[in-house]
Amino acid sequence: MESGDAARLGPGRAARSPPPRLLLLPLLPLLLGRGLRVAASASSGAAAEDSSAMEELATEKEAEESHRQDSVSLLTFILLLTLTILTIWLFKHRRVRFLHETGLAMIYGLIVGVILRYGTPATSGHDKSLSCTQEDRAFSTLLVNVSGKFFEYTLKGEISPGKINSVEQNDMLRKVTFDPEVFFNILLPPIIFHAGYSLKKRHFFRNLGSILAYAFLGTAVSCFIIGNLMYGVVKLMKLVGQLSDKFYYTDCLFFGAIISATDPVTVLAIFNELHADVDLYALLFGESVLNDAVAIVLSSSIVAYQPAGLNTHAFDAAAFFKSVGIFLGIFSGSFTMGAVTGVVTALVTKFTKLHCFPLLETALFFLMSWSTFLLAEACGFTGVVAVLFCGITQAHYTYNNLSVESRSRTKQLFEVLHFLAENFIFSYMGLALFTFQKHVFSPVFIIGAFVAIFLGRAAHIYPLSFFLNLGRRHKIGWNFQHMMMFSGLRGAMAFALAIRDTASYARQMMFTTTLLIVFFTVWVIGGGTTPMLSWLNIRVGVDPDQDPPPNNDSFQVLQGDGPDSARGNRTKQESAWLFRLWYSFDHNYLKPILTHSGPPLTTTLPAWCGLLARCLTSPQVYDNQEPLREEDSDFILTEGDLTLTYGDSTVTANGSSGSHTASTSLEGSRRTKSSSEEVLDRALGIGDQPVSSRGTRLVFPLEDNA
Amino acid sequence: MESGDAARLGPGRAARSPPPRLLLLPLLPLLLGRGLRVAASASSGAAAEDSSAMEELATEKEAEESHRQDSVSLLTFILLLTLTILTIWLFKHRRVRFLHETGLAMIYGLIVGVILRYGTPATSGHDKSLSCTQEDRAFSTLLVNVSGKFFEYTLKGEISPGKINSVEQNDMLRKVTFDPEVFFNILLPPIIFHAGYSLKKRHFFRNLGSILAYAFLGTAVSCFIIGNLMYGVVKLMKLVGQLSDKFYYTDCLFFGAIISATDPVTVLAIFNELHADVDLYALLFGESVLNDAVAIVLSSSIVAYQPAGLNTHAFDAAAFFKSVGIFLGIFSGSFTMGAVTGVVTALVTKFTKLHCFPLLETALFFLMSWSTFLLAEACGFTGVVAVLFCGITQAHYTYNNLSVESRSRTKQLFEVLHFLAENFIFSYMGLALFTFQKHVFSPVFIIGAFVAIFLGRAAHIYPLSFFLNLGRRHKIGWNFQHMMMFSGLRGAMAFALAIRDTASYARQMMFTTTLLIVFFTVWVIGGGTTPMLSWLNIRVGVDPDQDPPPNNDSFQVLQGDGPDSARGNRTKQESAWLFRLWYSFDHNYLKPILTHSGPPLTTTLPAWCGLLARCLTSPQVYDNQEPLREEDSDFILTEGDLTLTYGDSTVTANGSSGSHTASTSLEGSRRTKSSSEEVLDRALGIGDQPVSSRGTRLVFPLEDNA
Repeated sequence: MESGDAARLGPGRAARSPPPRLLLLPLLPLLLGRGLRVAASASSGAAAEDSSAMEELATEKEAEESHRQDSVSLLTFILLLTLTILTIWLFKHRRVRFLHETGLAMIYGLIVGVILRYGTPATSGHDKSLSCTQEDRAFSTLLVNVSGKFFEYTLKGEISPGKINSVEQNDMLRKVTFDPEVFFNILLPPIIFHAGYSLKKRHFFRNLGSILAYAFLGTAVSCFIIGNLMYGVVKLMKLVGQLSDKFYYTDCLFFGAIISATDPVTVLAIFNELHADVDLYALLFGESVLNDAVAIVLSSSIVAYQPAGLNTHAFDAAAFFKSVGIFLGIFSGSFTMGAVTGVVTALVTKFTKLHCFPLLETALFFLMSWSTFLLAEACGFTGVVAVLFCGITQAHYTYNNLSVESRSRTKQLFEVLHFLAENFIFSYMGLALFTFQKHVFSPVFIIGAFVAIFLGRAAHIYPLSFFLNLGRRHKIGWNFQHMMMFSGLRGAMAFALAIRDTASYARQMMFTTTLLIVFFTVWVIGGGTTPMLSWLNIRVGVDPDQDPPPNNDSFQVLQGDGPDSARGNRTKQESAWLFRLWYSFDHNYLKPILTHSGPPLTTTLPAWCGLLARCLTSPQVYDNQEPLREEDSDFILTEGDLTLTYGDSTVTANGSSGSHTASTSLEGSRRTKSSSEEVLDRALGIGDQPVSSRGTRLVFPLEDNA
Repeated sequence: MESGDAARLGPGRAARSPPPRLLLLPLLPLLLGRGLRVAASASSGAAAEDSSAMEELATEKEAEESHRQDSVSLLTFILLLTLTILTIWLFKHRRVRFLHETGLAMIYGLIVGVILRYGTPATSGHDKSLSCTQEDRAFSTLLVNVSGKFFEYTLKGEISPGKINSVEQNDMLRKVTFDPEVFFNILLPPIIFHAGYSLKKRHFFRNLGSILAYAFLGTAVSCFIIGNLMYGVVKLMKLVGQLSDKFYYTDCLFFGAIISATDPVTVLAIFNELHADVDLYALLFGESVLNDAVAIVLSSSIVAYQPAGLNTHAFDAAAFFKSVGIFLGIFSGSFTMGAVTGVVTALVTKFTKLHCFPLLETALFFLMSWSTFLLAEACGFTGVVAVLFCGITQAHYTYNNLSVESRSRTKQLFEVLHFLAENFIFSYMGLALFTFQKHVFSPVFIIGAFVAIFLGRAAHIYPLSFFLNLGRRHKIGWNFQHMMMFSGLRGAMAFALAIRDTASYARQMMFTTTLLIVFFTVWVIGGGTTPMLSWLNIRVGVDPDQDPPPNNDSFQVLQGDGPDSARGNRTKQESAWLFRLWYSFDHNYLKPILTHSGPPLTTTLPAWCGLLARCLTSPQVYDNQEPLREEDSDFILTEGDLTLTYGDSTVTANGSSGSHTASTSLEGSRRTKSSSEEVLDRALGIGDQPVSSRGTRLVFPLEDNA
């Protein structure tokens, strides 16, 4: 160990503060009261150093000042959100639809960012730093002996040498800059969990195949196309001399991955408000929820792509397959974690009488959902992805076992968390455009990126829709395809992925570009949704809660009256294949095991599992000869959505057995399994007919049941 | 600046990790994903240093390992809480009352603490530290130049030189040790806010005078007596030679302040479950809520007590009065902050139609309540105290303006947060007994402390009750006094105050003693509450929600049948004085301004305020000639509690006008103010009679209306 003279100590040369991206401080000044006080009570102030009492007083004041600044910066965000809420209310009150709350949050963020950037004096950093040179290596902990007292320091990160003196210091700007992991580990999980927990399951599962195709294949295609196009742009920039630092092919692919995470929050909000077509909603929402997960895992797989040998940016088949392996490993691992925690929660809530104590139940639900995140992180998987699948599992199984009060509690709890987190992220985005200190604006790259995401989305939606339509019973019409093309907004996930690493020049350029893409898509596309809906003749005012009129004639009259009749080819059954397989397994085994509904396991499991089946089946299933409860069918709508009386037969919303078919199902399941499948088929056959009664454009493609 | 050779760098001598009390890490491994990764990617691992790629790989693994450990340690707590919830359910299910959930959480915490302490190998700290001596002073930021790369370090705090090498290293123990400010700034605020938001207002305001006396005078008396007794104990310890370090009189007073914060969570839970006497409940709950605030401000005033001159621990009148001034300043400042934010929220919710959008409303409510905390901290007041008064204001005014859905949302949201935070703190307490590394067990001090808190509580309850009884209409009976004496549990607040500063020997001894006092009181007193209730003949089964039987005869028969008849002196009116003054002001001015209820301001304000009054009065007040809504009266019970039909006249729960008196009040208020006061008097006169219909001991002291 070289030491001694290798160290240079000189506060003069290091007028430098922590790099903004590592500052945890502003988010939780709460955490820091004491921490800061202790830290600053050791740091020397401007006061004289002769009297220790004087110095203590001065440092204490400084500590208080710092704590106060932390509180003020967090207050800024809270006031921003409050302002956003009040303005949203005004907009909703006046039915203004051209600007969504997230767009509004960004605008307010921008304004505050401008004020902070240009309105506050650029204070040069306090002369509190000390530079200490060492030839060896960096340690995570440093002990400094100051006149006999020992002070401990911890490593904050590396600083590029060029920036040590050049960065303009502005305390307030630093204070409002968060650790990027805050987004990924604190703000995204509630957003993602809520997305999973509120999936409209009937339509989600009915379109499961298409959604999976869009989310997996589509995101991969989009990532690859955007990556390659951007590589072309980067080459062009090199030719023109616009690029001042390295920008590799993997960087381009990484950009493709992060920008492929769509987040049509604005569009979906308008869909919800206008009651637009539920299948289109399911396609868009399902895709955006799942492709977030795909984009996360994809981007970390691309980062993990490290070819052996010297030329570290050439193609290497081994490294490529390793990356694919990592992708599959992380994805399936996170999926399993999420599903397992969900299943455990379902079992616990089923086999205890916890539902008598809603508070305990809600707390348990919250803790278990949170533990998914931690468990996945502890096992090296991705917490956010696990949380998504946990949310879906919780909604599908656990939700059924909860007491009525807990249902609304959990829904509302996560709704509030989601709302706050989302608006926080968007207002932070607005702020970051002016306060983030490492922007790299490159007009060529930005224009290239806009073109690339447009082409990437087109290359993803249209060909995939074409192939899906070959197999789908309900064709995805052109207007739906255009709407999906149009709804390729980028949002919180792309931002969180982009801000995670802004160390290199390439990443900084990506971050700036991502920010601008989010701004543009949220404002322009968000504002254009309502005109686009009417221009594309997409049905609005479809109320899935409402019973259709007693006879079907009125619908048949309208059959084929619109572009939706393009979806008229009903000969293929394949679209239901995945759904049916899943449904049958879920209905016969998973639901009875995990919830109080479904046919008794004693009838669906083989005879030799008798004892186990009896233990797992809840007594309610035998006790009530009433139709089985299927309360989870579409909980995010209303309870009235559960059963749609259709003609004279009753079908529950997600195609499972209702009052009429349920009794059959009960009888049937006692006889043979095939009989229960018969019932299922009938239910499916009927359930497949889209039930929409009212709408600005009443188009009702009634099918011949094949 | 001396530099160069003044610095010694040598990782060998500094096998030392951060002091546990400053570790933010375990609570939020979430926060740290990247932070740690970056930090550790710079810290050198055990790997060879020749190849930078190899090193990077090794450090990345180390970073992942660290992140994983963080997740595991947080998972430990979550599983602890989950286990606690399930066991609580079992206990509640079987109606076991001898152990409260908080006691249980502590037991589980203890068990895990033992396992962590003795079950995990004591790993000696990684050789990752670097010592760097400097003769000058400590800086808050350190730049280290490692072979041309710059790394940034931040100060974590001072380490006492003796401990640098002596502390046994155990990664897991460090990981589960939190920053003490986490308790104060993250876990306490929701607990305290919920306490304020759920104050049973009718009984709280009826007993306002007594509660204030207990909370302010009582806490001061208790603090002073405990402090002096402990000073005697400390003197004794010095004589015996049991004291190995300094322990000043101010330290003793500080101990008196922190240990005076009672937290009868166990007792109140049982009261709630058994529906014990509501007035006793109000006295206990009100006292415990307010004395938390008093204890916080008192302890910080004692810390601020710094006599001038050399003898820094002698009495100094100027410094004393300065401390009193600080106490009054902080307290009133925090109170004002809390009240102002509450009032602003009330005004916003009154004058916007935000209640059409419950999600927005709830989010606004949450943000405003949080901003109280930050605002108070930013202004140098105490956030926790501000949050308490904000909660009370929100419950009293804002709650009335909220939509029905938001009411249940906000209640449930804070209930869940409160539940989680409280059980988290208690399980952490159990854990800390074994994992906290700086315990100072002193049997003499501990025994002395137990005696002191007993005497302190006695000297606070009995004399105060005597003086209060001189003025009270409802005497506080001996059994009530004994019960209050018995209910002097210590809990989360004492713990949070004690763990806040454990730097000195005296503070460490206090912390250990506080921990043991909390354990003892929660387990023993919590377990003894039910026997004590029956032994003291305190009514249980009093259901304030239930209508009493149609005639009063059955009650009169029972009149005087018990110790409660000691409260029979009805000649004094003084007890209602404070309440009446407050009530009249609140009813005539505050409620009409801040909510949709109360008499129109146009009638209560002087004529020259006409325009203002018309603006502030909500149209509802004029529109509906129906009885004014008084929905806030006792919301934490049920809506059924609002109106108690008493005999043939109807009185709303908090003594204000109900259906019968309300119409009178409306007419009255249109005439004169004095008339409205007449109504008020009548309402008070009737409302004063305790309405209890059923109970294991049906004692009903019916009064002659004086």
